[in-house]
Amino acid sequence: MSVKFGIVGFGFVGHIHEKGLVDEFQEEVKITAICDIVPERMDDALSADARKYTRADELFADPEVDVAVICVPNHLHLEMVEKAARAGKSILCEKPAAMNLQEFEKMMQIVKSCGVSFTVHHQRRFDKDFRTIKAAYDAQEVGRPYMLQSKLYGFNGNMHDWHVYNQYGGGMLLDWGVHLIDQFLWMIDSPVKTVYAIMKNVINFEVDDYFKIILGFENGMFGEIELGTYFLKDQDNWFTHHWILAGDKGTAYCDGFAPSNGTVATTTRLLTSVEGKLTMTASGPTRSFGGPEPGLIVTKHLPMATTSYGDYYRNYLAAYHGKEEFLVTEEEMRRLLTVVEAVRKSAAENRTVEL
Amino acid sequence: MSVKFGIVGFGFVGHIHEKGLVDEFQEEVKITAICDIVPERMDDALSADARKYTRADELFADPEVDVAVICVPNHLHLEMVEKAARAGKSILCEKPAAMNLQEFEKMMQIVKSCGVSFTVHHQRRFDKDFRTIKAAYDAQEVGRPYMLQSKLYGFNGNMHDWHVYNQYGGGMLLDWGVHLIDQFLWMIDSPVKTVYAIMKNVINFEVDDYFKIILGFENGMFGEIELGTYFLKDQDNWFTHHWILAGDKGTAYCDGFAPSNGTVATTTRLLTSVEGKLTMTASGPTRSFGGPEPGLIVTKHLPMATTSYGDYYRNYLAAYHGKEEFLVTEEEMRRLLTVVEAVRKSAAENRTVEL
Repeated sequence: MSVKFGIVGFGFVGHIHEKGLVDEFQEEVKITAICDIVPERMDDALSADARKYTRADELFADPEVDVAVICVPNHLHLEMVEKAARAGKSILCEKPAAMNLQEFEKMMQIVKSCGVSFTVHHQRRFDKDFRTIKAAYDAQEVGRPYMLQSKLYGFNGNMHDWHVYNQYGGGMLLDWGVHLIDQFLWMIDSPVKTVYAIMKNVINFEVDDYFKIILGFENGMFGEIELGTYFLKDQDNWFTHHWILAGDKGTAYCDGFAPSNGTVATTTRLLTSVEGKLTMTASGPTRSFGGPEPGLIVTKHLPMATTSYGDYYRNYLAAYHGKEEFLVTEEEMRRLLTVVEAVRKSAAENRTVEL
Repeated sequence: MSVKFGIVGFGFVGHIHEKGLVDEFQEEVKITAICDIVPERMDDALSADARKYTRADELFADPEVDVAVICVPNHLHLEMVEKAARAGKSILCEKPAAMNLQEFEKMMQIVKSCGVSFTVHHQRRFDKDFRTIKAAYDAQEVGRPYMLQSKLYGFNGNMHDWHVYNQYGGGMLLDWGVHLIDQFLWMIDSPVKTVYAIMKNVINFEVDDYFKIILGFENGMFGEIELGTYFLKDQDNWFTHHWILAGDKGTAYCDGFAPSNGTVATTTRLLTSVEGKLTMTASGPTRSFGGPEPGLIVTKHLPMATTSYGDYYRNYLAAYHGKEEFLVTEEEMRRLLTVVEAVRKSAAENRTVEL
């Protein structure tokens, strides 16, 4: 029997969920209800026989909804999750789970007391670029890594709709930021000890559109996430995701959401013991930053990962049926929001925050 | 009458000074003396009639030396500066002036009590790449800047000679690091308020060969310096200096020590006020990080700066003759070492250091 989904909030992301489920999971899922306060937004719904509501309460009261997908602006997540939980719906909530940790803990109390399942849409764990670099990390392609960098730059400065207002939970940290941080936390198997962050609203009036986040992990590795919506370059692939993974045996990198250029660069030899005597070994005003000697650099292609967002729903449905755990766990959501709060605090006070 | 230079320490940098002075300043400068503990190192000296010493004391005792150029390893700067000052020589010291601030203050006491002049060789203030990006900064090509990035990556991991040992003042922070920080401090007319730094010895046994330094300036701007001697890419210009200057009206960048690709990218329009209503404005799973619409990005070439290291000596000689101030002032040297100490402290304690 199909799992019956109701989509609460049919804006940009509501549409994405409908399409993702309809395209690949027709056999297992039925979109039975859609809700948006603006009726016209539902005109292009793919699910012709879905009931359309303009008030979320109506959708939650619909017995033909098993799973409520919460796609409303961030400041409404708590309210909608509470209503869905009290109506006994399973909940798939858009990221970020909540505006802050306090809201999240309240949510967890409610969903537990109602006995419903709850998870968050961190489909970017299946991003091809992320999984390509993660495969290099997991296979220790660069030896012992000391730094992972994730960078995302935009041309337009454009944030959309409610994302330009703080009161609705706007800004890039709560938009892409939570995805990018989640990728690091999920990939690197070591607790975050320190957070240092810079946040700017460069061309937006009130919300962050640039941030640099430096995560210090217990194992000594550092992670850096930099995002700017107005950080320009006259270069075709500039706006896509850039990754660098640096280790003591090489460096891996890839560019683009579908990175065909993924590469591990290593050297045929490493620096070995250098004698202490003052030898005159090279000429020219820089010795450390000249070109490599011929044959020093050896490269290996990083095959692009074959993951897709469908993998997220596959896990969701398996977990819904009790056959797997939900990919995104309560503890992971809590940890992510803890880091997000540390990012805000660090940026506001311009100092490292210890976790 | 020629100014008579004596070079103390005739390793890599001693040779550079001799060549720089001989090539361009034959009319004004004479290399009268050279000293190195290893006599063979002086065999290729260009100044055939320079007296060659193997003990610095002999050079300092030579009345035919007006200016002592101190090119010994870092841990010997204080000792050599003291001896030169007590011998009444003007002093041009290699960077860093001293191993730490305490040594520097002692130096300043000595040179002042001896009434000799003292300055440090920060010739990288004339680097073409630095001056190219500085020109864009000075001309406000990107509007109000919020971030300046300076990045330098090497292929070999190779540090040389005494630079691989901490006891001699080795490591990249005291090598390229002081130059890169000096460029920021000299360019950005605002005090540094915070320092956050990560330092690693990735493939060297004891000295730093990777660092990321984030300087927070009082005016709200941030500077980032990243250097790695083992940070690889299969890309020709990877090992040269990369600059990004990001502002609220555009982004400037250039790559290479002689950057012919210097560019300012701006947009024909900026984000203006976006209405709060939930409009569905774009399709596809990312709206902020798609390609630019045709005609959005406008670029302007940044002409490469025409500076050269000869400019450093020109200032030195003018200042020696009392016609100018020394380019590198006592207060600048003190400020630089203050930041260097904050970098070390921040990296050691993994927290921001306030100045």
